[in-house]
Amino acid sequence: MASSICRWGILGAANIARKNWKAIRFAENAILTAVASREPSRAKEWLDANQSECPFATAPTACTYNELLKRTDVDAVYIPLPTGVRREWVVKAANAGKHVLCEKPCGPDAGELRAMIDACNANKVQFMDGVMFMHGKRLPLLRSTIDDGETVGQLRRIATQFSFAAGDDFLKGNIRVSNALEPLGALGDLGWYNIRFSLFVMKYQLPTKVSGRMLTEHGPAGAAVPLEFSGELFWGNGVSASFYCSFNTELQQWAHVSGTKGSIAVRDFVLPFYGCESEFVADRPVFNVKGTSYHWESHPRRFAVTEYSDGAPDAQETNMIRTFSGLALSGKVDPMWPDVALKTQTVMDTCLASARNGGVLMDVK
Amino acid sequence: MASSICRWGILGAANIARKNWKAIRFAENAILTAVASREPSRAKEWLDANQSECPFATAPTACTYNELLKRTDVDAVYIPLPTGVRREWVVKAANAGKHVLCEKPCGPDAGELRAMIDACNANKVQFMDGVMFMHGKRLPLLRSTIDDGETVGQLRRIATQFSFAAGDDFLKGNIRVSNALEPLGALGDLGWYNIRFSLFVMKYQLPTKVSGRMLTEHGPAGAAVPLEFSGELFWGNGVSASFYCSFNTELQQWAHVSGTKGSIAVRDFVLPFYGCESEFVADRPVFNVKGTSYHWESHPRRFAVTEYSDGAPDAQETNMIRTFSGLALSGKVDPMWPDVALKTQTVMDTCLASARNGGVLMDVK
Repeated sequence: MASSICRWGILGAANIARKNWKAIRFAENAILTAVASREPSRAKEWLDANQSECPFATAPTACTYNELLKRTDVDAVYIPLPTGVRREWVVKAANAGKHVLCEKPCGPDAGELRAMIDACNANKVQFMDGVMFMHGKRLPLLRSTIDDGETVGQLRRIATQFSFAAGDDFLKGNIRVSNALEPLGALGDLGWYNIRFSLFVMKYQLPTKVSGRMLTEHGPAGAAVPLEFSGELFWGNGVSASFYCSFNTELQQWAHVSGTKGSIAVRDFVLPFYGCESEFVADRPVFNVKGTSYHWESHPRRFAVTEYSDGAPDAQETNMIRTFSGLALSGKVDPMWPDVALKTQTVMDTCLASARNGGVLMDVK
Repeated sequence: MASSICRWGILGAANIARKNWKAIRFAENAILTAVASREPSRAKEWLDANQSECPFATAPTACTYNELLKRTDVDAVYIPLPTGVRREWVVKAANAGKHVLCEKPCGPDAGELRAMIDACNANKVQFMDGVMFMHGKRLPLLRSTIDDGETVGQLRRIATQFSFAAGDDFLKGNIRVSNALEPLGALGDLGWYNIRFSLFVMKYQLPTKVSGRMLTEHGPAGAAVPLEFSGELFWGNGVSASFYCSFNTELQQWAHVSGTKGSIAVRDFVLPFYGCESEFVADRPVFNVKGTSYHWESHPRRFAVTEYSDGAPDAQETNMIRTFSGLALSGKVDPMWPDVALKTQTVMDTCLASARNGGVLMDVK
């Protein structure tokens, strides 16, 4: 491919895809050429709404899924289709020679995800899951700070929470609590980020053991989906990570990374709060004891990057599209992305299996 | 007792007791009359060091434990003796008619603690555990904010971490990792605060079930003490709490309280950082979605009280001594204090039992 512009198609006119419409619009190495829905009329309506707000020079074409995959002016597809029906279209897209940016949770389980990745590998196309925070400008700064040997020292503990209060309407109608479409519920939608962040901190080393607890479920017995879930990950070197995700609990997206020398706190690890710099705070408190005086002194240090949290050229979702487009244009597949997606799903599967078995400690295989 | 001054004795010239020396010195309804050590010479040395730094008008007397308990000018005793030998002296103190402020963890298990409390009740003396944060000026503000119905809404999740990196010397010599003296290690020394804070948030309702994980132990098999421990508490109404405590991980003492409407974060729930106001932050982020724009906006509100974190008239340890002295002088025992200590120990025991049984969910009885 000699072009310096990656031509995108969106397979599924979902709400979340509006954000990536804008990201494709702002990434200078990407363009959106086609949008597909089961009903082309729905794709057209969705496309018109976005095009009027955030226009491409040439409006993308509305079509069906199969029509989109046959197009020769589409190099890469973004697939936000529900998890329960995603495998079919990821495999078809790969077989059509399209690079695949796949919404998370990628599959209902690691077996399905492996089939998707195998299809991508067989067709020499890139696979990546749509975890935007992986592409934020904050992440490299977090990496170098965790690794500097002094701020955190040896890692010991990671703790994360990602939750939002979905409300009653959500529980009645949203596909994210439908067993057929989103069987992993809050664990898939939110826990994916908790697990991925923990794996990031651990440089994608898999934990050896995990446990999980189903705190709240929704739906009929045998077809209920997780609404609230906690888990714990254990690595062989003594590091552990706890996580909590919930559709019942108002928005929080914090992470604490602790070690033998200090700690790092992030209050918005998934999506940086709007209107702020993207930041984290490191602390190495000093304990001063002198005679009858006991002082703990906090010495916080703030680390920040200027990064817009929505729709701007350096927002994390724009970086994601830019990076993916670059990979698609390069002709070389980066195996790191399917690898970390599969690890995330494997850890998630094992946490869920543990929860279904009374929270017993399970080996990650 | 007609006096308006509670006369204190300290049973055990421990380091931590230096802080309470100062607290007794600053509480206007308290005075220190005697200090005991196994060797009176050691008590004298310790007393002289403190008296030269923070003097009482009349220097306290140095004596042995038994001598102290026989004195008629001692109304209340503070007992920082090691957990492994504490029961004997709490019971003796109660039988001698002294009110008992007991260092935490109160006993090696709830059975021993119950025996101590029974002795105090039989002798109509007050029992209280030495959890200083219970007496901070911040706690009533936290209570009313959690309960206001809007800031947090219905409670869903509590998460806490209390840790400090003890270092190799500590592990070699400190009694806090001696099985005979402090069999509960970090779980007793630090986890006591995690559990108590969670019980405070839940208005001292016991969880119905808990689980625990031993992350790191120290010492020979069969006599090892916890160095690093995680646990999870589950209430019947769907609220859950996770905690982590560690002697291996540098200082953190954070708490997150989350509900259906918002959340509260405390970064120093055990001992307010020195030189700061004592504060917490509530947040109710707003999710603004409009077309291709996705904004999470943080709306933090800071709550603060002016409270000195060490040695001043309104420091939490001074409030503890003041409150205890008031109870001792009142002639009426407040049953809330032994009750919450026993609940804390019961939850801790059950978490430890779970950890010794592979982390299985256990009923709290």
